[in-house]
This record gives sequence, C-alpha cells and structure tokens, in this order.
Amino acid sequence: MGWLPSETGDRSKIIRKALSEEKRVSTKTSAADLVTETDHLVEDLIISELQKRFPSHRFIAEEAAAAGAKCVLTPSPTWIVDPIDGTCNFVHRFPTVAVSIGFAVNQELEFGVIYHCTEERLYTGRRGQGAFCNGQRLQVSRETDLSKALVLTEIGPKRDPATLKLFLGNMERLLHAKAHGVRVIGSSTLALCHLASGAADAYYQFGLHCWDLAAATVIIREAGGIVMDTSGGPLDLMSCRVVAAGTREMATLIARALQTINYGRDDEK
Amino acid sequence: MGWLPSETGDRSKIIRKALSEEKRVSTKTSAADLVTETDHLVEDLIISELQKRFPSHRFIAEEAAAAGAKCVLTPSPTWIVDPIDGTCNFVHRFPTVAVSIGFAVNQELEFGVIYHCTEERLYTGRRGQGAFCNGQRLQVSRETDLSKALVLTEIGPKRDPATLKLFLGNMERLLHAKAHGVRVIGSSTLALCHLASGAADAYYQFGLHCWDLAAATVIIREAGGIVMDTSGGPLDLMSCRVVAAGTREMATLIARALQTINYGRDDEK
Repeated sequence: MGWLPSETGDRSKIIRKALSEEKRVSTKTSAADLVTETDHLVEDLIISELQKRFPSHRFIAEEAAAAGAKCVLTPSPTWIVDPIDGTCNFVHRFPTVAVSIGFAVNQELEFGVIYHCTEERLYTGRRGQGAFCNGQRLQVSRETDLSKALVLTEIGPKRDPATLKLFLGNMERLLHAKAHGVRVIGSSTLALCHLASGAADAYYQFGLHCWDLAAATVIIREAGGIVMDTSGGPLDLMSCRVVAAGTREMATLIARALQTINYGRDDEK
Repeated sequence: MGWLPSETGDRSKIIRKALSEEKRVSTKTSAADLVTETDHLVEDLIISELQKRFPSHRFIAEEAAAAGAKCVLTPSPTWIVDPIDGTCNFVHRFPTVAVSIGFAVNQELEFGVIYHCTEERLYTGRRGQGAFCNGQRLQVSRETDLSKALVLTEIGPKRDPATLKLFLGNMERLLHAKAHGVRVIGSSTLALCHLASGAADAYYQFGLHCWDLAAATVIIREAGGIVMDTSGGPLDLMSCRVVAAGTREMATLIARALQTINYGRDDEK
C-alpha cells in the first residue's frame, strides 16, 4: 500500500479545492441522493490509475453503479471505491467528506483506506496487520452497556413517510434505551472510522452501499471491532445494512433494538 | 481580544490531553447531561484569569449554574462561558468539542470566541467588525429554499418519551419538507459555527443554554446570519431555544415547521 497515501492525497486536493467552489448538483435515486462532477472526476481518476497498475483487477464503484454497472463481488481481485462519501455534505461545504477504497480477493476483504479530506486523516486497515490513523494504531471502545453508548447512524437516501417513520422509530428506540447520544454526521465511512478509533460505541444504518462499507469493515475489524448484519448474523456486504460496534455485546443489543428498513441489495439493482 | 487566542489555546491543550484519558463522569439534569472534572477545571481557569484582569465584571458559566449560581444577565459587563461544549462527545473522545466565551454589556452581546479544540479552529466575532475563523472572514449561506437546505440540530438533555416524540417529530417535519439532510454533531456551538461559515443553512434547538448561544450569536450575526426565537420573534438568550439561519426566509420556514419543546428559562432555574 506504499503508493496509496500520496495518491489518495492528490484526490483529496481535488476535493478540497472543489469544496470551496460552486457545484453543479444532480440527483440519483431521490432528491436527497446527490452527485456532483467531482464525484465522477475523482472516481475516474482512481479507477484509471488503478487499472494502469492492475489491468486484470475488477472494480465496483459508486458512480459507475449509478450509471448501471452491476455490483457483483466475484473471487477476482476487486477494488470497491467511493470517490466522495458524504456528497450531501460536500455540496453544502460541510467539512465531513472522505474517499474510501476497499480491496477484496476471493470475496474476502483484504485492506481498506479512507481519507478524511479536510482534516487530512488517513485511516488504513489490512487483514491481520492492524488498523491505523496517520500511523497511530486504532482500538475500538470496549463498552457493552447501551445506556453508556454514543451511537452513530445516517438517515439514508429514501425519504418517503414510511421509511422516515422507521428511521426515526429506530432512533427513538435507542434514545429510550438511554443511549448517551445519537450522532448523524453525514458520512457513513467517517462515522465508521470514529467507531474504529473508539470515539463512538456503535454504528448502524439501513440504505448504505458496499462502497461505504468495504474499507471501513477491514479497519473496524483490525481495530478489534465487530461488523455484522442488522439481523445479528454475519455481514453481507451487498445487503445495504449494517451494525458495527466495539464489542459483540453492544452490536447484538443494537441489532435487537432495530426495525428493518428494506433497501434491497446492491447486487440486485 | 488580542490575549484571547493564546489563552484559549492553553485551555484547549488541557481539553485535548484529557480527551485521551479515562474520565470520571457525573450526571446533572438527566442521565444524558454529563459533566467531568475537566469541565470544572477549565471553567475555573477561565473565570479566575478573567477575574484577575476585570475584577468588576460578572460571569454566567455552565458549571457554576449547575451548582446553583443564578443566570441573570444584568447591564454589567458579563462573560458567558461554556468550558466544554459537547461534554457527551468529550466523554466518548468524539472529537467535536469546543470552548465558548461570549461577552455582553448593557445586555447586548459584544463579542464571542469559540475554539474547536481538536481541529484548532478559532472562531471570533465582534459586533460591527465581522466574524472570522483562524483569520478568514466568515459568510453564511444565502439559501432560502428549505428543500435545498442542510439543517443542524441537537437532541437536548431531556429524554422522557413525550420530549423525544417532539424532538423526532420536528426532525420528521424537516425531512418531510425535503431538507437535504439533518445533522446532529453533539456540539451546539460548533454546529452554530458551521452555520456561520456557510457549511449549513439552518440550525434549531430546544434545550440549549445561554452559554451555548452567546458567543455563537455574535459570530453568526457578523457573518450575515439571523439568530431568532423559535416563535419567529427576537432571540431571547435565556429562553433555552433558538433558530438560526443564513437568511431570514430560511429561519422563518424552520421556525414555522417546529413544535415547541418546553425547557423553561435559564434565568428562572
């Protein structure tokens, strides 16, 4: 991964510059699901550079998927790319925006890199070799008591009344269970990085995608944490839902508290 | 204000150091209303230093108020101090934590200083002289359309079922109105600083205090924004509620959408 930090840094310069400029914004699946020219530009740059180095590798990437490319994780070496996680933040110049790149072989996540563009924090994790932020080892929280937990989530792109009721109902259940607080920062990957660094005790979301999860999953597991399905079973990267926590006890408590919101699957779109 | 940045920086070193250590946590008005030794330590340091320089001035400060001191804003020069805004974040090492100091004379806010402890960003505003972050002039968003807005809020300390219903109902109304997103970052003052810098279009909260609002109000107004009561009338610093936005149109739309949550008044506790 020796070449990744500087390359990721170059991408983030594009994003930091664009953050201060007026943007042409389009919508995707809903009025809240935004995309800009910078998402496309950064994705194309990442993929074209990786393709030069690894011509036989496959790619799953957010904007390519939005344009109709299939999201199927085969045993081939596969890069899973989110060029700008937190696009709504990015559009508003809200400085919580990241580039996320995960890598899988034989359908197993091997490493992940997430770059917080404005704070210049590089999170990395490699299977069996630990997780780091700017070189400092990451360690999840050991909290098992939901009434002492800081819990992170994201709203998800669907905003119809029934989905909003379920989303707000889940937040209500956690606040009734006396979680210290719920935070919504607008970037799934950076929320998951906070979890990896022990700054939060749990994360859950319905309506995220494999490119939000791939890199972060390696980083959290290498920081000692748990990433699982909202059913309590093993993570399914394509299922558009996740619970992550510092401990299995906490992840299970969160999973039990949640009502399911159906977002379909990434590999059936 | 020439002496403030370095002094504030010293306080933030105490907070940054404490952020990485185990903390003894106590609760105040509810299980979600936390306080640590560092809140007390930083408040005592700020007040004792200001008292040395300005022995005739008065103080309103979060932890003194929690210990029973009255919050009454008289015409006397008065410092309004929140030693750690985002105490729940601080307890969890979630790096969104600030020191906030406002100053009023004749019950009029004259200047405000907010320091983002981990990102080392100093926000300042002085009546008639503009608002700045690390020397760069701040300018609010000019957005007037709620369906293009990024809206910030905080949960507030009361967690009884009726209050939670109202809190979540307000979030639902804004998401139904197709706001791009709602964010909850765990620090009122830093959320208000994001608003001042144009990174969000509106902020509202029930259950915050005069020490969360004093400094931020000057900074937002000097960045061109509006700070008003949730009724749509003028701000009442002691009323434990606020709507702020880049434009009066946006603030009015938000105020009209909200159901009131009664938190009493700071000057009647």
